[in-house]
Amino acid sequence: MFSLGLCGDVFLLPRQLFPLSCLSGISSPIMTTKADCFDRKFIPLSTRFDHSLLFASQVHRNQDRKKSGIPYVSHLLGVASIVMDYGGDEEMAIAALLHDAVEDHGGRPMLRVIEQLFGPRVAKIVDGCTDSYAEDAKKKESWETRKFRYLRRVRKEDAETRFVSAADKLYNVRAVLRDLRYNGDLAFARFAAPKAKIIWYYRSLVNEYRAGGVTHRLKPLIDDLDRVVMEVEHLSGVLAASPRPHRRLTTRLRSKR
Amino acid sequence: MFSLGLCGDVFLLPRQLFPLSCLSGISSPIMTTKADCFDRKFIPLSTRFDHSLLFASQVHRNQDRKKSGIPYVSHLLGVASIVMDYGGDEEMAIAALLHDAVEDHGGRPMLRVIEQLFGPRVAKIVDGCTDSYAEDAKKKESWETRKFRYLRRVRKEDAETRFVSAADKLYNVRAVLRDLRYNGDLAFARFAAPKAKIIWYYRSLVNEYRAGGVTHRLKPLIDDLDRVVMEVEHLSGVLAASPRPHRRLTTRLRSKR
Repeated sequence: MFSLGLCGDVFLLPRQLFPLSCLSGISSPIMTTKADCFDRKFIPLSTRFDHSLLFASQVHRNQDRKKSGIPYVSHLLGVASIVMDYGGDEEMAIAALLHDAVEDHGGRPMLRVIEQLFGPRVAKIVDGCTDSYAEDAKKKESWETRKFRYLRRVRKEDAETRFVSAADKLYNVRAVLRDLRYNGDLAFARFAAPKAKIIWYYRSLVNEYRAGGVTHRLKPLIDDLDRVVMEVEHLSGVLAASPRPHRRLTTRLRSKR
Repeated sequence: MFSLGLCGDVFLLPRQLFPLSCLSGISSPIMTTKADCFDRKFIPLSTRFDHSLLFASQVHRNQDRKKSGIPYVSHLLGVASIVMDYGGDEEMAIAALLHDAVEDHGGRPMLRVIEQLFGPRVAKIVDGCTDSYAEDAKKKESWETRKFRYLRRVRKEDAETRFVSAADKLYNVRAVLRDLRYNGDLAFARFAAPKAKIIWYYRSLVNEYRAGGVTHRLKPLIDDLDRVVMEVEHLSGVLAASPRPHRRLTTRLRSKR
C-alpha cells in the first residue's frame, strides 16, 4: 500500500516518523534551524519545461474554465505553480501542465504523444490524473461514473501521482471557495452534479489521498487541501444539512471496492 | 484619485454601486442568475502570451525563490494564474509573467525591452509593480527605503496596475502563510526585514490598494488578500504583541506623503 514515488520522501506513519534519510539530503521532517526548512538544492528548469508550457498553451488555447471566460491555461499554470511550491520536481510540474490534455483533448492517443514527447514518468502521472479517456471530450461518461472510478483507483497511485492530483484539486477547491464567497450557491451551477455530491467528492478525495500513504512532502499539500475543503463545507452549509447523501455515497464507494 | 484602468470596470464607492455598464457586457455586479456571475465572453489567449511564457522562463531560469530551491518561474506562473482567475485580461497576465524581470534582471533597460516586445500597456503595469530599478539586482537599496517608496506611490497607480500588484502580493502572502504553518517563525528568516515589519508592509498594502479606489473586479482580489494577511497576523502572533512598531511605521509613512 505504501509505494515510494517521490525520491527522497519521508513517509509519515501514524504517531511515527519514518525517515528514509538514506535517500535524500533531508535528515528529518522536524524543523529546528533555518537550514532545516523544506529548502532543497535548486535545480534550474530545463527547456523541456518550456516545451511543455507551449504544448499546454496550444492544446488548450480555445478552451475556457467551465464557461467562465477564464482561459483554461490559467488552471494549468496554477496547478504547475502549486506543484513546484510544495516541492515537486520538473517532471511533476510538466505533468501538472499536461494533466488535462488526455481528458479534454484526444484520450489515449494523446497520452501516447505525451509519453513520446515528455517521457514515461510524465505520462504515468498524467494517466493517474485522468478520469476519462473518451477521445471526444463531449462523449464522457456521467459525472458519478467517472468520479466513483477515480476514487477507487486513486489510493493505489504512487505518491508523486497523488501529489499532482492533490495540487489539481487544491486549485479547484480554492476556485470553488472564491466563487462561493462572491456568487453563493451559484458556484455549484457550473458542475455536472449537485452541491452535496461535489463536496462529498472532494472530502472523499482527501480521505483517499491520505489512505494511500502520506509522505512528508504530501502532508502540507493534503493538509492545505483538507483546510480549504473544510471551509467550503462550512460556507456552503452542507455540514448543517442532512448527512444522508454523504452516507449513501460513502457506503456505495466502499461496497464496490 | 479614481482612475479607470480596467476596461469595463465598475467602481464601488462607499455604500454605492457605480455601474459603468456602457463600457462592458456586465450589467450589474449584483448576482441573481447563473448568467449574472462574473462570467465574461471567452477571448482565447494569443501567441503573444506564449512568447511571454518563454521570455519569463528564460529570464528567470537560473533563479529560485528566496533560496528555497523553488524555481522562480513557479511564482510568475502562480501570479499570472491569479490575474486570469480574478478576471484580468491577456495583457495583464503577460505583465504578471514579467512583473519581476525589471527588478531582478536589468532595471530600466529591461523595461524598454519589455515595451518593445509586449507594448506600452504591459510595460506600464510592470513598471507599477517594480520597487527597484538597480541594473545590478545585488545593489538594491535597503528593504525599508524600497517598501516605503512603493507604498507612497501604489495608491496613485491605475486599477489594472494595482490589480496585478495585488495578485503578486496574494501569491506572496499565501506562501508566507504556508511557510508559517510548517516552519513557524522561520518563515520570516527568508526576508530582509523582521517579522513585524513584513506583516505591517502587507497590511499597509491592503490599505493603499483600497485607498486607490476599489473596482468591482479589484474587490474580490483585495478582499482575499486582506483575508490571508489577517490569517498571517493571527497565526504569527503579531497582533497579540505590542502594536508599537506598527504605529511608528504608519506615522512615518503618513508624515512624508
